[in-house]
Amino acid sequence: MRTRAAVATAAGKPLEVMEVNLEGPREGEVLVEIKATGICHTDEFTLSGADPEGLFPTILGHEGAGVVVDTGPGVTSVKKGDHVIPLYTPECRECEYCLNPKTNLCQSIRSTQGQGLMPDGTSRFSTLDGDPILHYMGCSTFANHTVLPEIALAKVREDAPFEKICYIGCGVTTGVGAVINTAKVEPGSNCVVFGLGGIGLNVLQGLRLAGADMIVGVDLNPARKEMGERFGMTHFVNPKEVEGDLVPYLVDLTKGGADYSFECIGNVTTMRQALECAHKGWGESVIIGVAPAGAEISTRPFQLVTGRSWRGSAFGGARGRTDVPKIVDWYMDGKIEIDPMITHTMGLDDINKGFDLMHEGKSIRSVVLY
Amino acid sequence: MRTRAAVATAAGKPLEVMEVNLEGPREGEVLVEIKATGICHTDEFTLSGADPEGLFPTILGHEGAGVVVDTGPGVTSVKKGDHVIPLYTPECRECEYCLNPKTNLCQSIRSTQGQGLMPDGTSRFSTLDGDPILHYMGCSTFANHTVLPEIALAKVREDAPFEKICYIGCGVTTGVGAVINTAKVEPGSNCVVFGLGGIGLNVLQGLRLAGADMIVGVDLNPARKEMGERFGMTHFVNPKEVEGDLVPYLVDLTKGGADYSFECIGNVTTMRQALECAHKGWGESVIIGVAPAGAEISTRPFQLVTGRSWRGSAFGGARGRTDVPKIVDWYMDGKIEIDPMITHTMGLDDINKGFDLMHEGKSIRSVVLY
Ligand SMILES: NC(=O)c1ccc[n+]([C@@H]2O[C@H](COP(=O)([O-])OP(=O)(O)OC[C@H]3O[C@@H](n4cnc5c(N)ncnc54)[C@H](O)[C@@H]3O)[C@@H](O)[C@H]2O)c1
Ligand SMILES: NC(=O)c1ccc[n+]([C@@H]2O[C@H](COP(=O)([O-])OP(=O)(O)OC[C@H]3O[C@@H](n4cnc5c(N)ncnc54)[C@H](O)[C@@H]3O)[C@@H](O)[C@H]2O)c1
Repeated sequence: MRTRAAVATAAGKPLEVMEVNLEGPREGEVLVEIKATGICHTDEFTLSGADPEGLFPTILGHEGAGVVVDTGPGVTSVKKGDHVIPLYTPECRECEYCLNPKTNLCQSIRSTQGQGLMPDGTSRFSTLDGDPILHYMGCSTFANHTVLPEIALAKVREDAPFEKICYIGCGVTTGVGAVINTAKVEPGSNCVVFGLGGIGLNVLQGLRLAGADMIVGVDLNPARKEMGERFGMTHFVNPKEVEGDLVPYLVDLTKGGADYSFECIGNVTTMRQALECAHKGWGESVIIGVAPAGAEISTRPFQLVTGRSWRGSAFGGARGRTDVPKIVDWYMDGKIEIDPMITHTMGLDDINKGFDLMHEGKSIRSVVLY
Repeated sequence: MRTRAAVATAAGKPLEVMEVNLEGPREGEVLVEIKATGICHTDEFTLSGADPEGLFPTILGHEGAGVVVDTGPGVTSVKKGDHVIPLYTPECRECEYCLNPKTNLCQSIRSTQGQGLMPDGTSRFSTLDGDPILHYMGCSTFANHTVLPEIALAKVREDAPFEKICYIGCGVTTGVGAVINTAKVEPGSNCVVFGLGGIGLNVLQGLRLAGADMIVGVDLNPARKEMGERFGMTHFVNPKEVEGDLVPYLVDLTKGGADYSFECIGNVTTMRQALECAHKGWGESVIIGVAPAGAEISTRPFQLVTGRSWRGSAFGGARGRTDVPKIVDWYMDGKIEIDPMITHTMGLDDINKGFDLMHEGKSIRSVVLY
């Protein structure tokens, strides 16, 4: 079949919206009509050329929601008409990782996904001239129709609006999940969140949901104060306005340090600050941000020996097929908010505007509606 | 009263054995006759001058066992004749830290202890000329008699031999505790231990006790192979004999990486190796070694985002008054071994030989018998 897609032809170039060929689903695969997709920082990371593993030409996008149109042989868990959210971290429930309760990093299709291919080692996308186009993070939601492995689809309730729940495909789950699944924050905790963008705001509301006491947000952009407060932030800190060092300031503010801190920027300096503002004895710091290629974090080991711990979170520690439908329920039940974070919507033809808004720091989330 | 002690008069100089004055116990304090004391790497760290917080003149030693001789006013938990192990990490059971189950780092007397003083801000030791001599880590077990706060004494059973259980005052608890309390290693785990000295060997036997499957020991000293095997090590790796990089070698050997790794050297390079040989998704790395002043650990944050975690352990995460008596029981019940690790004993007059043996890598533990 043919479908419309925004193709990333090369690093650093704007996306090109065009008709592309899409082959039908093979064994274990599913054809999905994407109804809405968010534009995430990670798409921009790859498009910019900063991602050393980026491959081109490709169809980006990994934060979508849509409807099953067709299923390949052997598919049993979803059927035509089901509402689904694509999962860039699949859940096969059979690999060594899925069977270990300590991780969500299903590895069953990792190597082909990293090469921009379906699990059989081929691509379903091609140009009208027949040249292959790669998949991206196993999702490629910047195409109106896409093919995914069955294990990379979370089936969700049908009354949930696509243009909102697409955000659960990455940002919401990453932020809320880092609090609930990775850090397992307890009620009454004092927490610090570095970076109040599309991820950090979701960490804030995850902390509110978990019953944290003090929810400190740190951002250089003063406009994020009002936005942060909307999602539960109790204190805003703009590093530019702090006299002296930021770390002792935050330790003081939190009366000894953060029980949990979260880095949602992707900057190794703020990663170190996040660790060092954690409470002696028990403070845990969670890295969510993705740093530039080659960048390294560092600290004195004494910080760890005196009881701080340093960890990371990918896709909020969520097992997509199990956890994403629950987060959709939380949204529908009003336990978490999404609507105010979707600051802009646009058609596929205007997708590059979504990237511009991100660069200008004007949007939290831009969503493309098909 | 007068007692004999090995005094550290200045950084880098051998200890001087001499008579010193010792004042009796004040409110909340206890006079203890030390019967035996181990010589630990940390004593050497301070004596050498490498410890930026080292103060002189002082009486070193923090790994002892002895008998209560006298108690000051208000002391209720120990009495004359009780067998005790001094605790450099006390347990007041009242401070914010003691009341938080996530940490063992009681802070109640921290600032005075760090200055080499008793909690009231004075020292009980002085030269025969009346010049004050500082306490060390709140213990000063290189004196035949010493004064400690009540909260820094673990009461232990009377049938346990002083010359063995003194080692529980630091090395045994640090190693075994890092496995049991900090990492909470589960049966069946694959583990890697960097450095098989006085601490690392105790990590090995902690892992054996916890039912680990693969217990890999890494040490540059080939003599540590036989010693390690005695305490449960299943595989020995000498980095000098590995072709290519050590990290992929260890990941391979452990079939994907260590579930838990432990750094027991104090070298920031091996700390990084220990983290990076941990299993993707869930591997935890625990730093026990104390690095040189100013040294920093580093890694790519991707190591953490993909599921490894980095933490540290001080005094094996043990709460001394509660946990040390249990570890003494484990020794008496044959669940852990101590005897083969005490490779040398000597009188106080020969204490400097104990430091020489350590420098030459010939001893695991030297114990001074009074
Ligand atoms: N681990 C995961 O699973 C995962 C998933 C999605 C995104 N991410 C990563 O999370 C990070 C955040 O993504 P986002 O979409 O929220 O980005 P964003 O650009 O929307 O937000 C970043 C925020 O950080 C602020 N900021 C920048 N530098 C700062 C500094 N030095 N001090 C304080 N604030 C600063 C900016 O003002 C902005 O508000 C990115 O690195 C992204 O790649 C990780
Ligand atoms: N965290 C705590 O509570 C605590 C308590 C006590 C001691 N420590 C620290 O633990 C560390 C170990 O103490 P120890 O008494 O066992 O020391 P040790 O000197 O007895 O043992 C160190 C071992 O590491 C080996 N080694 C040295 N460099 C190596 C390398 N690059 N690669 C592989 N092996 C190497 C040596 O051959 C030796 O066997 C020290 O830094 C000490 O200060 C920490």
